Amino acid sequence: MTDTSPAATLDIIAIGNALVDVLSAAPDEFIAAEGLTRGAMQLIDADRATTLYGKMGPGKEISGGSAGNTVAGAAMMGARCAFIGQVAADQLGEVFVHDLQSQGIAFTVPPRAADVPTGRCLVLVSPDGQRTMNTYLGAAQFLPETALDEAQIASAKVLLLEGYLWDPLEPRAAMKAAIGMARKAGRQVALGVSAVFCILGHHADFTALIDDGQIDILFANDEELIALAGLDDFEAALAALAAKLPLLVVTRGAEGAIAIAKGERFEVSAEPVDHVVDTTGAGDLFSAGYLAGHVHGRPVADCLRMGAVAAAEVIGHYGARPEQDLKALVAATLG
Amino acid sequence: MTDTSPAATLDIIAIGNALVDVLSAAPDEFIAAEGLTRGAMQLIDADRATTLYGKMGPGKEISGGSAGNTVAGAAMMGARCAFIGQVAADQLGEVFVHDLQSQGIAFTVPPRAADVPTGRCLVLVSPDGQRTMNTYLGAAQFLPETALDEAQIASAKVLLLEGYLWDPLEPRAAMKAAIGMARKAGRQVALGVSAVFCILGHHADFTALIDDGQIDILFANDEELIALAGLDDFEAALAALAAKLPLLVVTRGAEGAIAIAKGERFEVSAEPVDHVVDTTGAGDLFSAGYLAGHVHGRPVADCLRMGAVAAAEVIGHYGARPEQDLKALVAATLG
Repeated sequence: MTDTSPAATLDIIAIGNALVDVLSAAPDEFIAAEGLTRGAMQLIDADRATTLYGKMGPGKEISGGSAGNTVAGAAMMGARCAFIGQVAADQLGEVFVHDLQSQGIAFTVPPRAADVPTGRCLVLVSPDGQRTMNTYLGAAQFLPETALDEAQIASAKVLLLEGYLWDPLEPRAAMKAAIGMARKAGRQVALGVSAVFCILGHHADFTALIDDGQIDILFANDEELIALAGLDDFEAALAALAAKLPLLVVTRGAEGAIAIAKGERFEVSAEPVDHVVDTTGAGDLFSAGYLAGHVHGRPVADCLRMGAVAAAEVIGHYGARPEQDLKALVAATLG
Repeated sequence: MTDTSPAATLDIIAIGNALVDVLSAAPDEFIAAEGLTRGAMQLIDADRATTLYGKMGPGKEISGGSAGNTVAGAAMMGARCAFIGQVAADQLGEVFVHDLQSQGIAFTVPPRAADVPTGRCLVLVSPDGQRTMNTYLGAAQFLPETALDEAQIASAKVLLLEGYLWDPLEPRAAMKAAIGMARKAGRQVALGVSAVFCILGHHADFTALIDDGQIDILFANDEELIALAGLDDFEAALAALAAKLPLLVVTRGAEGAIAIAKGERFEVSAEPVDHVVDTTGAGDLFSAGYLAGHVHGRPVADCLRMGAVAAAEVIGHYGARPEQDLKALVAATLG
């Protein structure tokens, strides 16, 4: 991970699904009646999105998308960020782009014609804050390789890739090309594996990338780690993957998080939260805090705590974008 | 206010601006630099909406509109409601309609062509929760009289009119026609005067309606009461208007609220709130609670407390639509 390339002008450039979340409180009975798996994310088509939306209660529309949430959080903590994703030329697309640009995050991919609308994620929030996500990818699934700006990717310390985006063909090709651009420029590549279903669908691909040394930083939760390692035991999975990755960061919900950096293990507890309202974005914001510390050269223990602070903020309210000043929260917690 | 008409099948039918709020935290310095009056509402045109949105931070899109907020809250407390307003055939229009219909609120006005988009209110939320509103009316200003369904209006115990909508020509004509329909059917007419600037712009009109006995229930805050009465003293203004109205309900922010019903005065304290996040919709939700009690024949003191409970809920989070189960909150507070 020695950086011998020219001084970076960006800290993080992320490629991810450009989505607006539609968040609505829902009792667990509704989630069961709709045949959904509580806590999971599933892809849905346009018809199902219309039907499910019609059954949902009143919503709040808040920009989302896993990697988008991460750069939103990291930018709030002082990281210089850019985002690559595909919106349509419609109102939700304008909302998504506005919400990134208003935080100083570079976003230059032109909107696509609105024949396929901007993607959205219908998020059902249970009374205990657990979220069940139903994603209509819309325009996001058509992100073309031509959307990449090699000079921009080469200018960022870290290229962050969203596992969810591995599913559709065009964005996957774009992300593979982006990895090549980042590595050629001597930059780091971070992968958030996003969800167990992503890993099951692309196990060989993810494993090959890791085995080939294409990934410098991997973000996963405990279930994803186990699925990726193909081992039942958490500690065994941790050891197996840590051996192949310069930096492995694993979140464990209320149990905190673990980082293994060049073989050395660090742990952090979860930050206390008064009342969990909505867990949407908890993992994304953990990554945001971690990366914001990492790109500023902070020690691993600090990066973990920054991740914990950012994750705790975002689960205290609806939506996956931070409401409170994360920089101030980090300063108050870490000094 | 004796109701000799056929049994009502609706409790409240409201006519108001169909708006989606775009809520964003903003320091008071930003509000000052933009030349805005903290705490006020002003109308803006499409160009100014684009410019101001471009300067605002990341937002949350949540359905709004004063009368829309009131029926959303009243429906949550068990009132049977309908809403009349104009959206465009666009994504924000779909959001607005969905959020009402998903609460069982009848909404039958067809969307207008999207050449003029659905209206939105850019809400800047100060650190102390005060909101400064900038409304681009969009399609809402073109609500035509033909959108009224006389049978539907005649079927509701209370017709609620939004003062903000007095400004544009077509909706004003529609509301005047609706008053005639409601009165012909022996129903009550409630007016929320919305804002001091509405009163200043339409003082003669509002006064004539009140003097003619066209208004049964008036909702105002203390400043609006003073502007409407044209008197400097709050108590004098209260007495002057109470003499002309069967029911006058005046909210006073943290000081609670007063109702004068057929000359008898009732007061309620504000409900305690842990942390004021965003005062958008406080008055609208007070009206919601009051009317939900009123249409169910509850005593004035109960109606006031229901208003206070609903208002306290909505200022505890972003957005003017309730998040918590208001019916349960009312039951817990009033029994």
